Amino acid sequence: MSKSAGCCKRFLHYAFDYETPKTLVIPSLGVGFVFRFTQFLVVMYVGIDWYVCVVQKAYQDTDTVISTVTTKVKGFAFTNTSDTEPRFWDVADYIIPPQSDHSFFVLTNMVVTPKQVQSHCPELPSPSTTCVDDCNCVEGRSDPRGNGIQTGLCENYSTTARTCEVLSWCPLEIDTKLPEHALLVAAENFTVLIKNSITYPKFNFHRRNILPHVNSSYLKRCEFSRLTDPHCPIFRLKHIVSEAGEDFQDMAVKGGVLGILIDWSCDLDWWAGECLPKYSFRRLDNKHPVNNVAPGYNFRFAKYYKAADGEETRTLIKAYGIRFDVIVFGTAGRFSIVPTIVNLGAALSFLSLVRREMFRLASV
Amino acid sequence: MSKSAGCCKRFLHYAFDYETPKTLVIPSLGVGFVFRFTQFLVVMYVGIDWYVCVVQKAYQDTDTVISTVTTKVKGFAFTNTSDTEPRFWDVADYIIPPQSDHSFFVLTNMVVTPKQVQSHCPELPSPSTTCVDDCNCVEGRSDPRGNGIQTGLCENYSTTARTCEVLSWCPLEIDTKLPEHALLVAAENFTVLIKNSITYPKFNFHRRNILPHVNSSYLKRCEFSRLTDPHCPIFRLKHIVSEAGEDFQDMAVKGGVLGILIDWSCDLDWWAGECLPKYSFRRLDNKHPVNNVAPGYNFRFAKYYKAADGEETRTLIKAYGIRFDVIVFGTAGRFSIVPTIVNLGAALSFLSLVRREMFRLASV
Amino acid sequence: MSKSAGCCKRFLHYAFDYETPKTLVIPSLGVGFVFRFTQFLVVMYVGIDWYVCVVQKAYQDTDTVISTVTTKVKGFAFTNTSDTEPRFWDVADYIIPPQSDHSFFVLTNMVVTPKQVQSHCPELPSPSTTCVDDCNCVEGRSDPRGNGIQTGLCENYSTTARTCEVLSWCPLEIDTKLPEHALLVAAENFTVLIKNSITYPKFNFHRRNILPHVNSSYLKRCEFSRLTDPHCPIFRLKHIVSEAGEDFQDMAVKGGVLGILIDWSCDLDWWAGECLPKYSFRRLDNKHPVNNVAPGYNFRFAKYYKAADGEETRTLIKAYGIRFDVIVFGTAGRFSIVPTIVNLGAALSFLSLVRREMFRLASV
Repeated sequence: MSKSAGCCKRFLHYAFDYETPKTLVIPSLGVGFVFRFTQFLVVMYVGIDWYVCVVQKAYQDTDTVISTVTTKVKGFAFTNTSDTEPRFWDVADYIIPPQSDHSFFVLTNMVVTPKQVQSHCPELPSPSTTCVDDCNCVEGRSDPRGNGIQTGLCENYSTTARTCEVLSWCPLEIDTKLPEHALLVAAENFTVLIKNSITYPKFNFHRRNILPHVNSSYLKRCEFSRLTDPHCPIFRLKHIVSEAGEDFQDMAVKGGVLGILIDWSCDLDWWAGECLPKYSFRRLDNKHPVNNVAPGYNFRFAKYYKAADGEETRTLIKAYGIRFDVIVFGTAGRFSIVPTIVNLGAALSFLSLVRREMFRLASV
Repeated sequence: MSKSAGCCKRFLHYAFDYETPKTLVIPSLGVGFVFRFTQFLVVMYVGIDWYVCVVQKAYQDTDTVISTVTTKVKGFAFTNTSDTEPRFWDVADYIIPPQSDHSFFVLTNMVVTPKQVQSHCPELPSPSTTCVDDCNCVEGRSDPRGNGIQTGLCENYSTTARTCEVLSWCPLEIDTKLPEHALLVAAENFTVLIKNSITYPKFNFHRRNILPHVNSSYLKRCEFSRLTDPHCPIFRLKHIVSEAGEDFQDMAVKGGVLGILIDWSCDLDWWAGECLPKYSFRRLDNKHPVNNVAPGYNFRFAKYYKAADGEETRTLIKAYGIRFDVIVFGTAGRFSIVPTIVNLGAALSFLSLVRREMFRLASV
Repeated sequence: MSKSAGCCKRFLHYAFDYETPKTLVIPSLGVGFVFRFTQFLVVMYVGIDWYVCVVQKAYQDTDTVISTVTTKVKGFAFTNTSDTEPRFWDVADYIIPPQSDHSFFVLTNMVVTPKQVQSHCPELPSPSTTCVDDCNCVEGRSDPRGNGIQTGLCENYSTTARTCEVLSWCPLEIDTKLPEHALLVAAENFTVLIKNSITYPKFNFHRRNILPHVNSSYLKRCEFSRLTDPHCPIFRLKHIVSEAGEDFQDMAVKGGVLGILIDWSCDLDWWAGECLPKYSFRRLDNKHPVNNVAPGYNFRFAKYYKAADGEETRTLIKAYGIRFDVIVFGTAGRFSIVPTIVNLGAALSFLSLVRREMFRLASV
């Protein structure tokens, strides 16, 4: 071997990957195939790398959203059914409780039991409450499915039925006569203004769902629509329910829970103006009647009154309605040195490892 | 060296790890020891790798749960103590406020101050409110620990004590006479139905705590029990409190906050039917009397009445009770290419690095 | 080459990094420069490594906080303005609703409309409600910006204006006469005790914002101050608002939402006693009048009364006030083998890769 040839060899040795000359000295179909296959793998690796680092934003540090919500419902209704007196309803009547953190309840149907007082009355007829005489009733017994504490007497509930008398708020509520059509059908045209402020504390990033470019006159007349007004924070209840794939009139009869989901997922490496809320709507309770104890959504509350003689009476209301839960979620990402090194390093090192193994295999 | 021997050597060189032949050519006790030690390390590495990738599920992408809760308490009680009138209590009486997002408050004890009107009355006796004559009282002064704004007069509170008169809701509440035994002891037998829907938005995974295989008749009669009915969503309050290691009767006197924790941590790579809620219970406030201002849990609210002459009276209620906070948490994991590459790559590369260093050390 | 020299060379070859002798055999200014530059890079790598692993705590597993909050406001006020009757206010009057999960609302200003009954009355004058005669009013029409359902009559609203009569709660609320100075200015001196218990479920770590070393007598008299009492859980409302950079009197007029942020970010590798809450305060709604429908924070609620003849009347209250949202957040970290291996491995492997490439470049 001449000196220049040795020098040249050494140069080649340094200039290229130290495995490369070794594969070249073994001319073989198998090795050639492996070589090409390895080239393909390298290309694939670059693809995965690109996917990991760019598409999945693995170079970013992330933070979870902190949020505050206020809601304001507008609208009024007039009800005049055969069962109830004509009545006008405004926001103070149908929003219960009047203010809440991140949800609001709109009354749509109800069973009202007025003029209840603490007293005695015969139970509602059922297999466990009917009686023939006082012997069937035990003083002090309280049936969990009943409505009060038995006094030990058997009384006439109606001309045909005798039931055990109970100590309770009387008259008892008869909630089987729920109106088939929701009382406040007009509620579907109520609107709600949702004000939502968010913070990503790690990035000291604050934002509101009322965008900076939106002016006051627009806000006075706009209404959310995915196509024409995607950033208007005023929602018609009917629209929310129909976007969730439900029918307002159906849902209003027995009530339900409807989620207003606001997604604030953002890439803060880009222009922050692009960090916009994305609204979506989903029914959160189960509407299917299977496996359903207490379908829909309802709760009981009472208005207490005191007569001139000091006796307390109450109006019991079993309120059916739609609870709208405003659920704010999201993760923001911003470039950070740590995940970049971790992810890039891991990906590259892994690839380099695999490549080395491939070459070793190829060189055999 | 013959040709075949050289070929064999070359083959060996290619077939095995390139360091291996080198360590073999230095016969030495130390090197031998290091060689075995390295083998041990490699085995350990495989263990760590397995731990990182399989046990810790480092190959999964994760998401945090989004949840909605509705609760419905059932039960009634009858109270008849020496202090108060006999009274029947149902859900509209003891759940305050009637509906809430993910908590419910059950009234168990209280101090009632009926027939309060806006007027003047002598303060409750205390070192700062007792007086001898009007000179001790300053008109307009409001002591933060007092109950109203002083009128400047000194009045007889009782036959033995004179205190400064204040402008306030009179008569003043005397909350030192809290019943030693909770008024609504029967509350321990109330039951609560908790309906919980969860979503992992990243995986578009929805689920309820009422499981699909559960039928309606089971739900009507079941009651949560860790052993026999671990998936029944109906809980007896006494059971919740005792699982938290507390005594209901004790807790009911001064109130408290009790957490109903629902853990939805799931591995979505497995059969999704395995994603089940795990319930646990924990007292969240501090029951120990040390460092305790305002131990327990209570708040004041009032029922307002209007007399025929238009005068407003109110019944002030200092309500003691247990607030049950339903806290839903959990993280779901599902296979994802990014964490797999990152974690596998990092682990493998790290190990390969360490191994190389070990061998270099060994070869010295 | 003598045998000893070959042996020595071989020893050197094994003892040091295998690239090092090779760069040394090429004496060249460029290579020397690259060699030094590489040394600089290695030092820098150590710096990044240190940063990733120590400063950013990349060796820790993390968990998100789970929290419960109870609040108790103290204080009373006396109002005596020209518009309203003298009135004494205590906690049952100005906290609405009386209890809530992690927020509390303090009433500071209001528009009261007493003695409303379901009846007919002329609308408030506005371009869309004024009329000349009955022909301008349509029976059954309900203007979303109006206050009720038109009866079809045109009535005298005042001596100068005629408006359409509506079916509504009458008399109508006139909310344009909001007092310029907040009614309950004294609310700034109310104090709130915030009890906050947190849990990091993954680490089974529980903690309260009332610290163990704090004694009961201190809690009875202390008041939060960033300098002197940074761990006192009793906050004066005025102090909260001023720390958020706002003026209480300004904010009290139209209301607002104020965040009390409690940061529980902790490094659990250190003495857990160091895991302390950090309080900060921020206004969460937008105070600027631009883009502002319904600035501030208010809601309507009603107190319902029943007259002796059974007629229901209500007092409608448009309540302006400050909603204090207690927002608890934080992430705890504790040493864990998985992120340590992942991060350390990734960083080291990445660096080793880069170093190898640098040397290869240098050797050219």
